[in-house]
Amino acid sequence: MSTAYQIALEDLANREPDTVATIFSQGNGTFGVRATDPLLATDGTVVNGFFETSPIIYGEAAHGYAKEHQTIVSLPSLRHLTIIDQAGQPAATRAIKDVRLDMQTGALTMTTEIVFPDDDRPLELTTTSLIGQADQDLTAYLLGYTLTTTAYEGMITFTKGPLVFQEKESDIERDPRVVVRPLQLKHAIIDSSATAVVQRIQTTESQLTRFIKTSNVAGLTQTVKVAPAQPAHFEAYVQVAQQDSFALDLDAAVAQRTKAFWHQFWASAAIDITGDDKMAQGLHFNVFQLAQSANRTGEYSIAAKGVSGPGYEGHFFWDTEMYMLPFFTYTHPEIARKLLEFRYRQLPLARKRAHDMGVAQGGLFPWRSINGAEASAFFPAGTAQYHIDADIAYAVAQYFDVTQDKDFMEKFGLPILWETAQFWRSFGAWSERDGRRVFMFHDVTGPDEYTALVDNNTYTNRMAKANIENFLSAYAQLDVSSLLDIEEADLQALKDIAAGIYLPEPGDNGVTAQDDTFLSKPIWPFATTPADHYPLLLHYHPLTIYRYQVSKQPDELMLDMLFPDDKAVSQKKIDYAYYERLATHDSSLSRSAYAVLAANLGDTEKAYHYFMDSALLDLTDLQGNTKDGLHMANLGGSWMSAAYGFAGLKVVEGQLSISNRLPAQWQTLALNLLFRGRQLHIVLTHDNTVVTLLAGEPLTLAVDDQEQEISRK
Amino acid sequence: MSTAYQIALEDLANREPDTVATIFSQGNGTFGVRATDPLLATDGTVVNGFFETSPIIYGEAAHGYAKEHQTIVSLPSLRHLTIIDQAGQPAATRAIKDVRLDMQTGALTMTTEIVFPDDDRPLELTTTSLIGQADQDLTAYLLGYTLTTTAYEGMITFTKGPLVFQEKESDIERDPRVVVRPLQLKHAIIDSSATAVVQRIQTTESQLTRFIKTSNVAGLTQTVKVAPAQPAHFEAYVQVAQQDSFALDLDAAVAQRTKAFWHQFWASAAIDITGDDKMAQGLHFNVFQLAQSANRTGEYSIAAKGVSGPGYEGHFFWDTEMYMLPFFTYTHPEIARKLLEFRYRQLPLARKRAHDMGVAQGGLFPWRSINGAEASAFFPAGTAQYHIDADIAYAVAQYFDVTQDKDFMEKFGLPILWETAQFWRSFGAWSERDGRRVFMFHDVTGPDEYTALVDNNTYTNRMAKANIENFLSAYAQLDVSSLLDIEEADLQALKDIAAGIYLPEPGDNGVTAQDDTFLSKPIWPFATTPADHYPLLLHYHPLTIYRYQVSKQPDELMLDMLFPDDKAVSQKKIDYAYYERLATHDSSLSRSAYAVLAANLGDTEKAYHYFMDSALLDLTDLQGNTKDGLHMANLGGSWMSAAYGFAGLKVVEGQLSISNRLPAQWQTLALNLLFRGRQLHIVLTHDNTVVTLLAGEPLTLAVDDQEQEISRK
Repeated sequence: MSTAYQIALEDLANREPDTVATIFSQGNGTFGVRATDPLLATDGTVVNGFFETSPIIYGEAAHGYAKEHQTIVSLPSLRHLTIIDQAGQPAATRAIKDVRLDMQTGALTMTTEIVFPDDDRPLELTTTSLIGQADQDLTAYLLGYTLTTTAYEGMITFTKGPLVFQEKESDIERDPRVVVRPLQLKHAIIDSSATAVVQRIQTTESQLTRFIKTSNVAGLTQTVKVAPAQPAHFEAYVQVAQQDSFALDLDAAVAQRTKAFWHQFWASAAIDITGDDKMAQGLHFNVFQLAQSANRTGEYSIAAKGVSGPGYEGHFFWDTEMYMLPFFTYTHPEIARKLLEFRYRQLPLARKRAHDMGVAQGGLFPWRSINGAEASAFFPAGTAQYHIDADIAYAVAQYFDVTQDKDFMEKFGLPILWETAQFWRSFGAWSERDGRRVFMFHDVTGPDEYTALVDNNTYTNRMAKANIENFLSAYAQLDVSSLLDIEEADLQALKDIAAGIYLPEPGDNGVTAQDDTFLSKPIWPFATTPADHYPLLLHYHPLTIYRYQVSKQPDELMLDMLFPDDKAVSQKKIDYAYYERLATHDSSLSRSAYAVLAANLGDTEKAYHYFMDSALLDLTDLQGNTKDGLHMANLGGSWMSAAYGFAGLKVVEGQLSISNRLPAQWQTLALNLLFRGRQLHIVLTHDNTVVTLLAGEPLTLAVDDQEQEISRK
Repeated sequence: MSTAYQIALEDLANREPDTVATIFSQGNGTFGVRATDPLLATDGTVVNGFFETSPIIYGEAAHGYAKEHQTIVSLPSLRHLTIIDQAGQPAATRAIKDVRLDMQTGALTMTTEIVFPDDDRPLELTTTSLIGQADQDLTAYLLGYTLTTTAYEGMITFTKGPLVFQEKESDIERDPRVVVRPLQLKHAIIDSSATAVVQRIQTTESQLTRFIKTSNVAGLTQTVKVAPAQPAHFEAYVQVAQQDSFALDLDAAVAQRTKAFWHQFWASAAIDITGDDKMAQGLHFNVFQLAQSANRTGEYSIAAKGVSGPGYEGHFFWDTEMYMLPFFTYTHPEIARKLLEFRYRQLPLARKRAHDMGVAQGGLFPWRSINGAEASAFFPAGTAQYHIDADIAYAVAQYFDVTQDKDFMEKFGLPILWETAQFWRSFGAWSERDGRRVFMFHDVTGPDEYTALVDNNTYTNRMAKANIENFLSAYAQLDVSSLLDIEEADLQALKDIAAGIYLPEPGDNGVTAQDDTFLSKPIWPFATTPADHYPLLLHYHPLTIYRYQVSKQPDELMLDMLFPDDKAVSQKKIDYAYYERLATHDSSLSRSAYAVLAANLGDTEKAYHYFMDSALLDLTDLQGNTKDGLHMANLGGSWMSAAYGFAGLKVVEGQLSISNRLPAQWQTLALNLLFRGRQLHIVLTHDNTVVTLLAGEPLTLAVDDQEQEISRK
């Protein structure tokens, strides 16, 4: 039996070991450990930013193509240990009996039935693990192993050694979204004693190094007796560090600090549902895993799979800024800030990339990358997604809007807004449309990769406009003229462009076009598409998909979530109805956005169903590939579904607004938010909406369209 | 000194050995031998259809991508022999003194100065070579070597053996247009005697085999004395065959039949210019090389480089049908027919490819291929060029229009027209534009690869319309209802589509759009593009190029050449002026078409300059890459420039039309044509245009807009 803050094996729809390993993975943004069978020396450790490069081979190459693959390294599991019997024979796992994750403490418990060779007396191995969460503990992984038995009796030996590297094969043909390239790692034990072993691991091409120290002051090898009523216990402490200098030795305080971290986390990020335990559990799991994946050092971001698996090669995409950041911005802005500082550090590479792409001014962030260089090997669905610039800028502006963190904005935020605004200025062009002079962007790909290389993708255009406007607004607010070399002519040019960017009016059928020609295409033949031909990208040539109206995820509709006051409700309803018909939800980024949109339009029943899919996407293995890692964007998206959708959270001209869209299935939805120094507690019921100020100055906000001022009682 | 029917070394702008080897290459469509130094065992033999496959590796793969590279095999030169002195030391070439190609006989003579080691007495080696041209001689290559000296005296030994294979490296990074993959060939001597050696060569993956027999009835090794006034002579006879059965032994008649072939060739294909020897020579060279490259067996086509070099991997493109076929159709229709029969044989693969691309009916020919399977590794500039179907259909219709070859049309032509018409029907979609129901084609790439994945590419749409109309017209003319399973509903659907295909009206600026959004893009910044940044494709990312108005070669303008009566002259002039500004001529297919267009619009001065570039493109190494092979499409294009351009040749509703556009630089242009069983001789002077019927029934035709009937005197 699990509670809303626990996940147990029985909660999973798919209990295959790889899926179990993902769901119960533990991480802290610096590294992650998949919940693999502790007796197997299988892969199971992902270290953020620890990647290998390899040349991208193109069937037909051209100038300016991304040169190198970047592939996150899958290291052997840190959980692995060996248990041998008196005859020196190793125990093996017969079955996983239970796994249980306590999201209030971060502790994971896995119970496995194990046996020794030629001996049918089973033993039960309980492996507990905890990953350090306090800043000083981000290298720490604590393990406890307890062996019990009702039948076995004998001396057994626990041994916890260095990582065991095994030969593996390339998985390149399996699924283009989950490339696993064979990597040649150098690894050596550089220090070894009875109580500690330090291993150095180096990548060959990217020349990165990590050090792993495994220790136990009582000895890394222990022989003890196990018998009925005489459990055997063994502990180990593993640290993963960039330097061969480990700040901590086995420290009981790690567990204490980790517990405190989660306590504070749940206080700031509290979100709860009554009347629907399953959804509450799903939502808790999602934000818990989001927190586990978020790097807090400013050196890295959150990969599409976090640190829960090697899917998408460990790359960072727009997912971080557009799907994950909002949760952090509203609940843990210190983490959001670090994630945005990471982008700031990549500006020099972005400027170089813009130049390589024939854009003289500004910077272009990579569509997918670990180290900041473009690693997309298919530009129509990669580099052509120039909107990445505007997405990052949106997240910067939102962070500033919600936190009013001027220090961040002056040092990091404004330079990002400036470089991205300059990019749009240099990338776009003035043109004519319907007799009017407008600023256009050609040959771009929007978020929906089922349409590529189009002109005036509405999402891109609108986001670029916001990008420039947000730069101009922040520049006007902050006194930074000494920091950036910006002339009045630049500001005027940017103002003209922001005002001139082409945005389509609804067409003949009343629908807002996704791009210049989308609506002229035929609609995908859904009626004759076999159910097993989804996701389409695995069953049809891109050219086949591109020539139809069909979408993997929202594109034009995203704008109705991001700019909720751009359109009249009637127009939003027309667009929603039109594009929803075309959506395959082949992307895990789709459903959560649809949940927000449906809720905002008052269709809470539909929103609830999208939310349900989103909230449980990994727990139910809805996409069928949770084994490759968690769908991080969806985890953040499900929070957005609750906050933006059911709670109608938005900020309009600096004023927070909450609109109660509680679905019929729930009794209450409660969530905590931080907004401009205030801590808010929001409770929605079917009768009313109560916003309580837990900390901070009085605030005027809009609740269900009524302005009210709240202050501490 | 060379004449208009000779090419000598001195006529070449670039005399680097690789360029010389291309220019003086000999071929017969079955195989080609580059004019390499006979003392070097370098690569130099291209056998049509003899290719190797290798897996295409994609940085990011997707469903339906072309699976295999096809790479023409570069075999060692057939010209190679060794000459050793009494000490057993081999002679080496010191300099190429002269090369001379006689286009009236097909004979090539290369004179090289050679020396033996440690001996400064030079010798002169004259290598004569002839490739068999009569149908029964298509395996034959005749060599004669004569050694003379003014100083040397001694016994020397000539040895002509089997091909010598050398290790070579991949050239993959050099230029994306000239990929040379390392190939592992199996080769073995399967029969050897003093007078003949037979070698079997096999590819590993594609499992193709060729046999090469080298023979000399007087012995393959001969030791003779050479001294001043005592030349030494040696002969060899090489045959390249698909089977180990060689029809001929050394046969003096081969030379005779080859001479007869060229005599007949020049009679049918006569084209001459007076007052401009350089252009006359260039044009002769071009059609001579075109003939040398054309396969006449129906098994293969003409590769982009013919059999003159390994460029473009030996692939066939639309070049054959759109640039080379017209010359054959009007002068050697029996060759044109064979080239079209080759496409007919590939219909089953085309049907499979259409299906793979999500198109239920019809066939889709590969954009680039040797064996009929798509081998393009970059679909935006490959498979997306669906116009290949309409190009082949255009060539079929033109062949039928000019020859009235019903036998071909019933057996081969109509099935091609039917499958391609069906493709368009299934590929396109009915849509709305300006309140009108129209048939559209989405996400296609036109001939100009500097713009990709657009909607309603005007070239594609217009050509598809012609494709369907030509099918309907041929179907109505021929009684083939028993051959094809076509229903009345199919015919009606095709009629509706042909009538409904969207074709743009001139836009606000009066220009006919290349596609739905081309004219809204900014114009390429020509003023700030350094001269050494052309061709753009080698210096800019495709995305950079795609987002501007810039063209590698004509696209919309091609239609004014192919459908000269579609538009008013005033509109053609507007379009020409507009698009010419955007043309970089980075493709060797560009200038010849511009020559036709300029001539048709009466600007013979401009046409002359384009023609000059086109006529001499390889002789002057204008593109800088003649070393990789001849630009076959341009060779055919220069004939089109003369025939379609300066002679205004066109067929309108079955009537031949000639319009005199003689450039000021010329006194006369004379050319022979075959039209519907008549042999015509056309002479343009600045005073008049005379069309003479050399053979056949009387003919009514239009000459300079005046209808006239001609008959044999």
